[in-house]
Amino acid sequence: MQSILLEIFKDIPFTEAETKRMFDKLEKVSLKKGAFLLQAGESVHDIHYIHQGCLRTYFEDSSGKEHTLQFAIKGWWISDYIALYGKTETKSVSYIECIKEATLYKISKKDFDSLCKEIPKVAHFHIGKLEGAFAAFQRRILENLTLSATERYLNFIAAYPNIEQTVKNYHIASYLGITTESLSRIRKEMATV
Amino acid sequence: MQSILLEIFKDIPFTEAETKRMFDKLEKVSLKKGAFLLQAGESVHDIHYIHQGCLRTYFEDSSGKEHTLQFAIKGWWISDYIALYGKTETKSVSYIECIKEATLYKISKKDFDSLCKEIPKVAHFHIGKLEGAFAAFQRRILENLTLSATERYLNFIAAYPNIEQTVKNYHIASYLGITTESLSRIRKEMATV
Repeated sequence: MQSILLEIFKDIPFTEAETKRMFDKLEKVSLKKGAFLLQAGESVHDIHYIHQGCLRTYFEDSSGKEHTLQFAIKGWWISDYIALYGKTETKSVSYIECIKEATLYKISKKDFDSLCKEIPKVAHFHIGKLEGAFAAFQRRILENLTLSATERYLNFIAAYPNIEQTVKNYHIASYLGITTESLSRIRKEMATV
Repeated sequence: MQSILLEIFKDIPFTEAETKRMFDKLEKVSLKKGAFLLQAGESVHDIHYIHQGCLRTYFEDSSGKEHTLQFAIKGWWISDYIALYGKTETKSVSYIECIKEATLYKISKKDFDSLCKEIPKVAHFHIGKLEGAFAAFQRRILENLTLSATERYLNFIAAYPNIEQTVKNYHIASYLGITTESLSRIRKEMATV
């Protein structure tokens, strides 16, 4: 019980009482490949820490085309943040699909907010995570605006090492905002360099 | 002194000692139209609350083309968040330009972090702001992927009422990721409906 908290909270030292308080709020979730953690239209109450496996968040546009917003691997937190943190939505606008068998730890936003109020170390951990995520998202917008598809693909490989065995080509292409044909072309060009 | 803190922190009640502590860390900054709050390559240490006026954050790509990331108006906080909150950069990757004469209140990240540790109300306020900003950015990525340029323009007008008198057409077009010609066409179409 101690070890998963140390993993989740990056070795922050908690007292025994704090450890118990936090562990009581966490629920272990196992997901098979292909299962959905969340589907568009469902109510969103929880965030999930990924202990093992891989998940993909995507939107489906009105023509049925999928747009991959995020891949999430060990050490990440996943939810539909537009619903969870936004002011106007409470229903998920995205799908979160398990693409490699996963073990997650779930906590409701309500409980997480309480922990932040009760245990300042949790609040400061959360601030650090949010600041990092906000910077990463702004960086991604910047990269989409200013980098070539090849450069974005290289950044993707660096950010998600070894993920290519797990995800389908059209997932990667839709994450990069390109066609699968462009992705194949980029890979071929890289192979011949 | 009390009134600007009430404006910045949305009426959170602070004690007299907290008010003094916080006000000591804030510095008033006045900016003329056309002045830069920050330029690419400069070190980033501060965040700025906008009391009056309007600013624009943009990136310049290698061909010199500007990409508008954000407009910031009264009530917003502005900085180069990739440098301020990211783990790899410390220099600004963007320009922040004053596009309507502005009054800001500046605080260093170091001082803000200290306030979050000393005054839990500030930490929880910061968490709420970060969560809202994170949701808004994800929503913007989603909208860029799934909405038409006309729909994005309508959302822009709703998010920034009355901003069109202040900003240039190519600012709006680059925020929406379209050409100024497309923007003109959209406006014409809307005028004839």
